[in-house]
Amino acid sequence: MRAITIPEPGDADALVLADVPAPVAGPGQVLIDVVAAGVNRADLMQRMGFYPPPTGASELPGLEVSGRIAALGDGVDGWKVGDEVCALLDGGGYAEQAVAPATQLLPIPWGVSLEDAAGLPEVACTVWSNVFMTANIQPGQYLLVHGGSSGIGTMAIQLGKAVGAHVAVTAGSQAKLDVCRELGAEILVNYTEEDFVEQVRAQSNGHGADVILDNMGATYLARNVDALATAGRLVTIGLMGGRRAELDLGTLLAKRAAVIATSLRARPATEKAAIVAAVREHVWPLIESGDVRPVIHSLYPLAEASAAHREMEASTHIGKILLTT
Amino acid sequence: MRAITIPEPGDADALVLADVPAPVAGPGQVLIDVVAAGVNRADLMQRMGFYPPPTGASELPGLEVSGRIAALGDGVDGWKVGDEVCALLDGGGYAEQAVAPATQLLPIPWGVSLEDAAGLPEVACTVWSNVFMTANIQPGQYLLVHGGSSGIGTMAIQLGKAVGAHVAVTAGSQAKLDVCRELGAEILVNYTEEDFVEQVRAQSNGHGADVILDNMGATYLARNVDALATAGRLVTIGLMGGRRAELDLGTLLAKRAAVIATSLRARPATEKAAIVAAVREHVWPLIESGDVRPVIHSLYPLAEASAAHREMEASTHIGKILLTT
Repeated sequence: MRAITIPEPGDADALVLADVPAPVAGPGQVLIDVVAAGVNRADLMQRMGFYPPPTGASELPGLEVSGRIAALGDGVDGWKVGDEVCALLDGGGYAEQAVAPATQLLPIPWGVSLEDAAGLPEVACTVWSNVFMTANIQPGQYLLVHGGSSGIGTMAIQLGKAVGAHVAVTAGSQAKLDVCRELGAEILVNYTEEDFVEQVRAQSNGHGADVILDNMGATYLARNVDALATAGRLVTIGLMGGRRAELDLGTLLAKRAAVIATSLRARPATEKAAIVAAVREHVWPLIESGDVRPVIHSLYPLAEASAAHREMEASTHIGKILLTT
Repeated sequence: MRAITIPEPGDADALVLADVPAPVAGPGQVLIDVVAAGVNRADLMQRMGFYPPPTGASELPGLEVSGRIAALGDGVDGWKVGDEVCALLDGGGYAEQAVAPATQLLPIPWGVSLEDAAGLPEVACTVWSNVFMTANIQPGQYLLVHGGSSGIGTMAIQLGKAVGAHVAVTAGSQAKLDVCRELGAEILVNYTEEDFVEQVRAQSNGHGADVILDNMGATYLARNVDALATAGRLVTIGLMGGRRAELDLGTLLAKRAAVIATSLRARPATEKAAIVAAVREHVWPLIESGDVRPVIHSLYPLAEASAAHREMEASTHIGKILLTT
């Protein structure tokens, strides 16, 4: 089959289309004929050699796909060949066929195209596991989402609003903020012009953010802690601004607050299964009712994966970038 | 009544015995004839002017007492004048009489003297709220307790062991570590001679600490993060080693771990009530069965509060220091 390989780590041109052996569904797994694959920042890190695949995972990039089940491994119940699905993968999504644990499959939500569904698993699982399962956002609380127009951001805004949270976002342009507002964000901060700590505090009547979903890491750590409300939870899921920064434990203690850093990919299979099950139970109905929709920015043919990566690196996109086979 | 006052912040001699008006039990409160009061590090901070009492609390130091109920405020049910109790206070414990919200009262556990019970509320509530309610320690997990021979440490060791956790401690002398071992600690680290990260890792078969209860803050932050297991929770409740330090979010993210900083005193009354209720439900039976006991180091007359503070500052004590009226 055709797949995107990474013969040597490097810039976007390190992605090379090649013929490789098709994967085989082992026990508990399914083989999927891929229709589309989502592009994620973790793929860029893997391409650059910073984020090696976990033990046992495909060496190929790609953490989510949509498509049709082509074969079932031993012991798979509840799915059949031909079913249209999307899936959270441990790797290998940039390919014509990919293997997923059956516990990481999701049906295509009613009203979403098979292609667009490739953009759902990673963002839905990331947002649900972090903002809901870990940080336990509650109705009426303030959720601050950095990078509000990213794939994860657009899902976090919609899910936050759907459960009755007040959503604040940061983004780097008015066009991005306009989309965030349409999706339900109430507090809009252009980080090129305004201080998000000041804005979130002022526009929440001094309350601050109960939960922050952060993709910046070091460069935002001090300001994130300053922006937290009493008993607030900062959840860092990306380190685009570096990994090391000073933490003021005195401020954290005075607020009785938490700094949590986590990733989805490295979690054990049992945790991923629990997250996928929770997403199917809680998020899928909100998609099928139209309260939450996938926000798709662009689709590239698989062979143009390098161009897709360059677009993500330029950060000009709003929502998900997909590859189609 | 006689009470310890702090006319001017300063060293241990800043504590001055004086005659002050007795407090009055407001609605929902009780007045207690104090028999003994616990000494806590927070009192030392307050004495030095670093930890001002929360709004509405007594200006006098003292966060826990034991004694007999002298009067009931309006609307107090379930308690009567003459009942022997211990209580978590918002302040004012270094005195012949103190006022406590009824929701922060506890009966004297069977088998514990009225005096010794003064050393229970703060440590039991601190350990239960942080190690159990916040960090959710589980049987079989590793709990690292810094300052294992402190009042909080001696309670944390016993409660950790009682629920089936493996307990590791740090302390500064062999005599202190011997007490920790008697109380149930399995991994004993003399921090003046050994590196706790190395010792905890080696003696947990490379697993690390699932929960760390930390009183040092800045000076231990990096090593605490290094000592955490996957999905570990660092709970900082004291800043004896300072407040600001570099945090490696990359390490935290790779471990999917959390840094939480918190304090008991500043929590709202509803949270304190919930903690006290949980302690009565979960900790009191363990004390009454003999699995957990108060560890009392010394008792000083109220008039010698300065000497009690000097002993705590010297860190030569093992367990609680109490004042008696």
